[in-house]
Amino acid sequence: MLTILLIILGGALSIAYGLWAINDVMRRDAGTQRMQEIAGAIAEGAQAYLRRQYATIAVVGVILFGVLAFLLGVWVAVGFAVGAILSAAAGFIGMNVSVRANVRTAQAATQSLGLGLDVAFKSGAVTGMLVAGLALLGVVIYYAVLTRALGFAPSSRAVIDALVALGFGASLISIFARLGGGIFTKGADVGGDLVGKVEAGIPEDDPRNPATIADNVGDNVGDCAGMAADLFETYAVTVVATMVLAAIFFAGQDILETVLLYPLAIGAACIVTSIAGTFFVKLGPNQSIMGALYKGFIASGVLSIAAIAAVTWAMFGGFSRTLTITGGTSFSTSALFMCAVVGLVVTALIVVITEYYTGTGYRPVRSIAQASVTGHGTNVIQGLAVSLEATALPTIVIVAGIVFSFKLAGLFGIAIAVTAMLALAGMVVALDAFGPVTDNAGGIAEMAGLPKEVRKSTDALDAVGNTTKAVTKGYAIGSAGLGALVLFAAYTSDLNYFIAEANRQGSTAYQYFRGVTPDFSLANPYVVVGLLFGGLIPYLFGGMGMTAVGRAAGAVVEEVRRQFREKPGIMEGTERPDYGRAVDMLTRAAIKEMIVPSLLPVLAPVVTYFVILAVAGKSQAFSAVGAMLLGVIVTGLFVAISMTSGGGAWDNAKKSFEDGFVDEAGVRHMKGSDAHKASVTGDTVGDPYKDTAGPAVNPAIKITNIIALLLLAVLAHS
Amino acid sequence: MLTILLIILGGALSIAYGLWAINDVMRRDAGTQRMQEIAGAIAEGAQAYLRRQYATIAVVGVILFGVLAFLLGVWVAVGFAVGAILSAAAGFIGMNVSVRANVRTAQAATQSLGLGLDVAFKSGAVTGMLVAGLALLGVVIYYAVLTRALGFAPSSRAVIDALVALGFGASLISIFARLGGGIFTKGADVGGDLVGKVEAGIPEDDPRNPATIADNVGDNVGDCAGMAADLFETYAVTVVATMVLAAIFFAGQDILETVLLYPLAIGAACIVTSIAGTFFVKLGPNQSIMGALYKGFIASGVLSIAAIAAVTWAMFGGFSRTLTITGGTSFSTSALFMCAVVGLVVTALIVVITEYYTGTGYRPVRSIAQASVTGHGTNVIQGLAVSLEATALPTIVIVAGIVFSFKLAGLFGIAIAVTAMLALAGMVVALDAFGPVTDNAGGIAEMAGLPKEVRKSTDALDAVGNTTKAVTKGYAIGSAGLGALVLFAAYTSDLNYFIAEANRQGSTAYQYFRGVTPDFSLANPYVVVGLLFGGLIPYLFGGMGMTAVGRAAGAVVEEVRRQFREKPGIMEGTERPDYGRAVDMLTRAAIKEMIVPSLLPVLAPVVTYFVILAVAGKSQAFSAVGAMLLGVIVTGLFVAISMTSGGGAWDNAKKSFEDGFVDEAGVRHMKGSDAHKASVTGDTVGDPYKDTAGPAVNPAIKITNIIALLLLAVLAHS
Repeated sequence: MLTILLIILGGALSIAYGLWAINDVMRRDAGTQRMQEIAGAIAEGAQAYLRRQYATIAVVGVILFGVLAFLLGVWVAVGFAVGAILSAAAGFIGMNVSVRANVRTAQAATQSLGLGLDVAFKSGAVTGMLVAGLALLGVVIYYAVLTRALGFAPSSRAVIDALVALGFGASLISIFARLGGGIFTKGADVGGDLVGKVEAGIPEDDPRNPATIADNVGDNVGDCAGMAADLFETYAVTVVATMVLAAIFFAGQDILETVLLYPLAIGAACIVTSIAGTFFVKLGPNQSIMGALYKGFIASGVLSIAAIAAVTWAMFGGFSRTLTITGGTSFSTSALFMCAVVGLVVTALIVVITEYYTGTGYRPVRSIAQASVTGHGTNVIQGLAVSLEATALPTIVIVAGIVFSFKLAGLFGIAIAVTAMLALAGMVVALDAFGPVTDNAGGIAEMAGLPKEVRKSTDALDAVGNTTKAVTKGYAIGSAGLGALVLFAAYTSDLNYFIAEANRQGSTAYQYFRGVTPDFSLANPYVVVGLLFGGLIPYLFGGMGMTAVGRAAGAVVEEVRRQFREKPGIMEGTERPDYGRAVDMLTRAAIKEMIVPSLLPVLAPVVTYFVILAVAGKSQAFSAVGAMLLGVIVTGLFVAISMTSGGGAWDNAKKSFEDGFVDEAGVRHMKGSDAHKASVTGDTVGDPYKDTAGPAVNPAIKITNIIALLLLAVLAHS
Repeated sequence: MLTILLIILGGALSIAYGLWAINDVMRRDAGTQRMQEIAGAIAEGAQAYLRRQYATIAVVGVILFGVLAFLLGVWVAVGFAVGAILSAAAGFIGMNVSVRANVRTAQAATQSLGLGLDVAFKSGAVTGMLVAGLALLGVVIYYAVLTRALGFAPSSRAVIDALVALGFGASLISIFARLGGGIFTKGADVGGDLVGKVEAGIPEDDPRNPATIADNVGDNVGDCAGMAADLFETYAVTVVATMVLAAIFFAGQDILETVLLYPLAIGAACIVTSIAGTFFVKLGPNQSIMGALYKGFIASGVLSIAAIAAVTWAMFGGFSRTLTITGGTSFSTSALFMCAVVGLVVTALIVVITEYYTGTGYRPVRSIAQASVTGHGTNVIQGLAVSLEATALPTIVIVAGIVFSFKLAGLFGIAIAVTAMLALAGMVVALDAFGPVTDNAGGIAEMAGLPKEVRKSTDALDAVGNTTKAVTKGYAIGSAGLGALVLFAAYTSDLNYFIAEANRQGSTAYQYFRGVTPDFSLANPYVVVGLLFGGLIPYLFGGMGMTAVGRAAGAVVEEVRRQFREKPGIMEGTERPDYGRAVDMLTRAAIKEMIVPSLLPVLAPVVTYFVILAVAGKSQAFSAVGAMLLGVIVTGLFVAISMTSGGGAWDNAKKSFEDGFVDEAGVRHMKGSDAHKASVTGDTVGDPYKDTAGPAVNPAIKITNIIALLLLAVLAHS
């Protein structure tokens, strides 16, 4: 119980940090009247969107709550509600801080770049710590309630099902928030650019563009709230899957609860080190923003190694204790610690690789900028080439992570590596969530007519934000790749448990599973069928996401054209555009567009199960669904990394032109040149790639896995 | 022996048809002096390229011949040479007919569309029949030599290894030809367009553009010779893999040789029906080119069902005979026949689906054209969305094909379904290979200043060619998807054979495999490692291919700029551009660029094997390589379908503007409008997608599989 209390304390620290940081941000100067007006409009739009999004999800959520309560009992349904509500809360609070920090960042940037970074980063850190803290608290407190207050055994089905349902609740918010937010933000961005920059010839964030507030709202609901929900889910699902594995691997041993709590303790320790790391983020004399962020990130990482070592030592009474999986292999606690280090190293490498592929100044982004010189077509070709190539090194790193952690401590070692990787979520999300704040700050500076230097500071922060955004997405999907085996193992272990129980002499439990013999060998055609069906999900889902952005952008174009037509004074600056209508229209469009694609990964495992059941029986249906879980990762990993890295590279290739890009022939191409225009095309293409379709693949993968686990639970109860 | 002779007769018929068709094409009027001059330059360039490409491959080939002879014996090396030489011959002859048919098509088109179609289609049919016929003859004659003249037992390792090596020979040509040809053709196309259309403002195929002959050369070396090598390989590898499976599944039974020859007999029968089908390709009164092609295709398909029924009946003495896999399941010969029908149905469905996604007039292409109205960015976004979505239906069809044929006759049933699918290769290639001829004819018409109507006819043929090109690529990759299990089964069966022999009491053979216990379960982390490494190949390979086209196009731009600078008379029409230099420069660039990417799929299985061997031992190394074979299909299928369908759709979306595209608001956008310009960007992006990176994925998949089989053979000899 002491361990549980200490873990809760770690989680609570994140809330305390959040309160302190919110207070610190809110104390800052909120700028002029005009700036506050603009920020107010953004905040209003963002809240309106999120309210409507949550209202829509709530309808689905209440139905699912009822279904789960009916099928699997009330504690499972409560777990689902806990996951959903906490995930929504993390996104909602984070976004509310973000829409207040934006204007304060703009004001701080009038004084210095360092001050702007400070406000923006602190605001991002609120979201980061809340994501990690609330996810941890949700899991640990609900676990304590189930095992202590309600008296369920730690490895009982009641606990496992309830925790899986908690992950499902987080997944539900995540898939809708990522996709809905992504469609909103990129619909506004692409649509606003098309009608503003291209048709009307006014710059980005020009106050005459009726879509400009919507664009800034989008940054908050997509990049802040959507991303928070995504990482909350990734964190919750990974921790839960690791606990499910522990419950099965160490069933009946005295050490069981210690092993169950070990991933949570790692999470708690890393919240502390992440908070400590935030204080290292300070702009050095070289004014390198990425350098400042790296300082914080490296500090967190190094401290985390020490903290995880301490946790391992304290929980297992040293590094040389041997753990033995029930009826299986053994490994030492030092091996578990090394697995955690592997997870941290994988994180570090993915950060470095993603920076290389998306940062200005390196070959990939330069090659796209260079290709812009010969036109729109070659820009896009080179961007696609970079996006394809960018998958190689992360894949090799993930594979190495799998091999090393498996050699150290088997499947459970892989689970601990992923847990350690995600334990840094607080820091990684903090690095990312300052991006939308600075993006907004730039918009406010432009609309409020602040001096050019302010815009320059916010642009510099924003360019780094593009990279850190790509990093976070790469990190989330990388953890999914490394965690694929863990989720698959949770599925097979669950399945094997039900089969063993059903086949026990005289057993009356789980009779649905009696005589089932799944075969996960690649030689089984239904495994290949599952791999292909799973592989299809990210493609079809990605295609739907891209189309949805296209449609939403089209709706924005029409709305803006209508306003320009009906209020001719807008362009002269004598009439005020109706920002609210654009936000409102886009809200409806995004919510409508997010429904069908979100259902794809939810329904896919269920449909696959019943189709194969009808064709080839239970055993093959379970085999196909299992294979589907790996199929969705195998293509999802590549689709997501290529889209997020490629999109980031396109965006920064465009930014290369802001100060003039010197091509291979030594010619300097300025903003407004043909080469710059070509780079804008690439950026537009990259927008839905990196901010809608690509990042939504991660929740799609997770939800497919969670649904498969729930399917087993439901069938077990039937 | 009678069966073998009849199969040889079927193969020989294709040669006879080829000679007749060549003669028929050559008898046609070759047009004016100027047209013949242009055609001569194209032919010269194409031959020069192909000579240099083959010379480069020959160096690699001779080394590999020596290595194979040393490691696996002379008959294996000879098999390799047979595959390589016949594949090269099919491409070489097909291309030589193509560069003569182009000018005759242009001349025929001055008379009527139907006459143009007739010449172009007949020329394409030569390539088609040679591909199917030479592949069939190569396999059957070498099989006869090995088993009859040299006296090897039909299921002996000597025969299996020699046939696998034949497939490897075909693969070697294929990977280089697809990639080298693809880089050449799209380097010329993209580069020529950039510097001609965009910079100099002259139309496509304008004789003042020094890259214009290179562009026409590219159609022949890429779309004709490259495609022929690809399909030759697909045909040869599939038939060989089916035979390997038959040799293992029916080892020691009397029926063995009949089953071994069954796929070859299907091939022979379908050559006859394909030839018959070509005579149904006649332009109807509605002037529908696609309709004319469909008539031929449907006729071939229907006749093939009857022919395969006859072959099955004759070879097995009826439909009710039961075949039993040694130590395994049983199925009837009627089930085998039904599997062949499944293969034909899959082919038909893939054709229809691909036409839907790439044909003008359907939703996907229209949606891209519509998106062009709002700019370059939205055009590319919608094209990418279509390319992602286009993978869904083919995947479902392939999965259904796997399930149905597996239920009918197990793994061997799947092999027969793929065999039947590829047995139509003659017809499918014929449908495709007329595309480059009409493309060339259009170029010649433009350069020789023929009347506009001629260009209109060749453009109409060309638009259909875009669809049939996408169809052929979808068909080739679809067969790879369906055949994935067959190739994997060939690998595992081979591996199990070696392990069983090595472990036999007192055995001294294959001692390398003693005690090896591969585990292909998805729960094995090394299987996931293999899936991810395999999945990476199409991405990295695709990225390299796209980059190579970008570089080659850049080289063309510089060469053309240099000529414009040094010969100012070119643009006034007083000086003749140096077409030869552009061709020569591009030849060198393409050959240089094709080497490294081609080595990726060749080396990947070998490197994976030895890395995992070092880390985790033999058993896991074999598991990882096996999983790699499926990983490369799982992502390769999606990458290839999305690239080829997306590229085709972009191309035809551009063509929608040639006669004016009416958008949703009722506005008509003509050629030269902003919307048309945006569609040109999409077309440029689609070029390397559909003609370089996408189609080269298929040989990359095949060669990975073949290398894995050869690796087993080499290790068995060590």
